[in-house]
Amino acid sequence: MPSVCLCLTHVLGLCLGLLCLLFVTLWSAHWRGGFSWDGSALQFNWHPVLMVSGLLVLYGYAAVVYRLPFTWSQKKRVWKLVHAGLMFLALVLSVLGLCAVFDFHRFIHVPHLYSIHSWVGISAVVLFAVQWALGLAGFLLPCSPLWIRSSLKPVHSWIGKAILILSVTACISGINEKLLFTLSENSTEPYSSLPAEAKFVNSLGLLIVAFGLVTFGILSNEKWQRPEEDAESVQLLPNEHSL
Amino acid sequence: MPSVCLCLTHVLGLCLGLLCLLFVTLWSAHWRGGFSWDGSALQFNWHPVLMVSGLLVLYGYAAVVYRLPFTWSQKKRVWKLVHAGLMFLALVLSVLGLCAVFDFHRFIHVPHLYSIHSWVGISAVVLFAVQWALGLAGFLLPCSPLWIRSSLKPVHSWIGKAILILSVTACISGINEKLLFTLSENSTEPYSSLPAEAKFVNSLGLLIVAFGLVTFGILSNEKWQRPEEDAESVQLLPNEHSL
Repeated sequence: MPSVCLCLTHVLGLCLGLLCLLFVTLWSAHWRGGFSWDGSALQFNWHPVLMVSGLLVLYGYAAVVYRLPFTWSQKKRVWKLVHAGLMFLALVLSVLGLCAVFDFHRFIHVPHLYSIHSWVGISAVVLFAVQWALGLAGFLLPCSPLWIRSSLKPVHSWIGKAILILSVTACISGINEKLLFTLSENSTEPYSSLPAEAKFVNSLGLLIVAFGLVTFGILSNEKWQRPEEDAESVQLLPNEHSL
Repeated sequence: MPSVCLCLTHVLGLCLGLLCLLFVTLWSAHWRGGFSWDGSALQFNWHPVLMVSGLLVLYGYAAVVYRLPFTWSQKKRVWKLVHAGLMFLALVLSVLGLCAVFDFHRFIHVPHLYSIHSWVGISAVVLFAVQWALGLAGFLLPCSPLWIRSSLKPVHSWIGKAILILSVTACISGINEKLLFTLSENSTEPYSSLPAEAKFVNSLGLLIVAFGLVTFGILSNEKWQRPEEDAESVQLLPNEHSL
C-alpha cells in the first residue's frame, strides 16, 4: 500500500507545477504584453513560458511517473512509453522556447548565448536531448541487451536529476536576468524598489525552486520506487525490476 | 574495498572545488580590483569569494566526508565531529559573505534582498543554519534518542542536497547578476560582447555547476555509503549504521 506521504507529496508537486505554469503565463500575458511570433519582445515572452512548461514542469511530471502508486499494478512497458512520450513533449517545448529567444535576439541584433544563464540553459537542453535518445535506445528498443539496461539505469537516473538541477538553475538565473533588464535602474519602477511585478515574479522563482525540490524529493526516496513484485520485469531479470 | 570510480570521483570533486576557489578569487582580485572591508565595491568582492568558498565548496567537501573510503575503518563519531566542524566553518564563511554584501548595499544606499538571486541565497543560508542546529541536536548530543536519529536521517540527507541545489542556483544567478551590472550595455565591453572577464567568469559558472553535480553524484550513489560493518553504529542499533 502506497504511503500517504508519497501521495501527498505527488499532490504538492502537481499543485506547485500548475502554479508555476499559471504564474509564468500571467507574467508574460499581463505584465509583459502578451504573445506573438514575429521576432519582437512579444515573441521573447514565449521563452519563459515554454522553458518553464517544458524543461521544468512537464519534465518533472514525466520524471516521477514511475513513482505514482496507481501505476504499480499496471504494465511497466506502458508507463515507459508514457514517460518517453511526456519527455519528448517536454523536449519539443524546450526547443521551441530556445527558438523564441534566438529569433528575438536576431531581431534586435543581440548575440546569442553570452550569459552564464544561457550557457547553463543550453547545457540542460543538450543533456536532455542526449538523455532522451540514450533512454530510447537503452530502455525501449527491444534489441537492447539487459546488461546495457542495468549499466545505464544509475547513469540515466543521475543525469535525470542533474538536468532537473540545471533546469532550476537556468530558470532562476533567467528570471533574474529578465527582471534586471526590464525593471532597470533607469526605469520608473526599478527591480531594487520591488514593484508589484518584481514581487510576483520573485514568487514565481520561489515556486520553481519549491517544485524542483519536491520533484527531487520524490525521485530521491528509495522507499518510493516502483515495488519489486513487477511481473514483467521479474520475468526479464530478477532484481532488475526498475530497468 | 572502495571502488576506483568512487576515489576518482572524489579527486574530481576536490579538483573542481579548488578550481572554483581559484577562479572566484582571481575574478575579485584581478578583474574587480581586490579586497577591503570599508563598505566599498572592494568589500562587495568578498561576497562571491566567501559564498563560493563557504556555501558551495566547503559545504560540498563537508557533505561527502562520510563517503571517503579511508574514513570507513575509523570511528564514526570522529567523522561526525569533522562533518559538523567543517559545516560550521562553511556556515561562518557564508554569513560573512552576507555581511559583505549587506555592508556594501548600505554604503551605496541600495535596498537589501530584492532580487530572486538574493531570495534564493538567503533561503539557502537560513536552511543551512537550521540544518546545522538540527543536525547537532539530533546526531551529536548524547541525549538524542535513536528513534529521533533514524527519523531525522532521511530528512537531513534530503535537506542537505536541497541546500546544495539552492547554493548552485544562488551562485549562478549571482554571477549572472554581477556581470550584467559591471559589464553593462553602456560600458565599453558589455557582457553581450563576451569580453575576457565574461568568458572567465562564465567558466567559473560552469566549474560551479560541475562541482555541484559531482558532489551530488557522490551523495546520491547508494553503493558509495559508509559500509554497514561499522562497529560503533552496529553496537548502537543494527541496520542503523549511518545515523
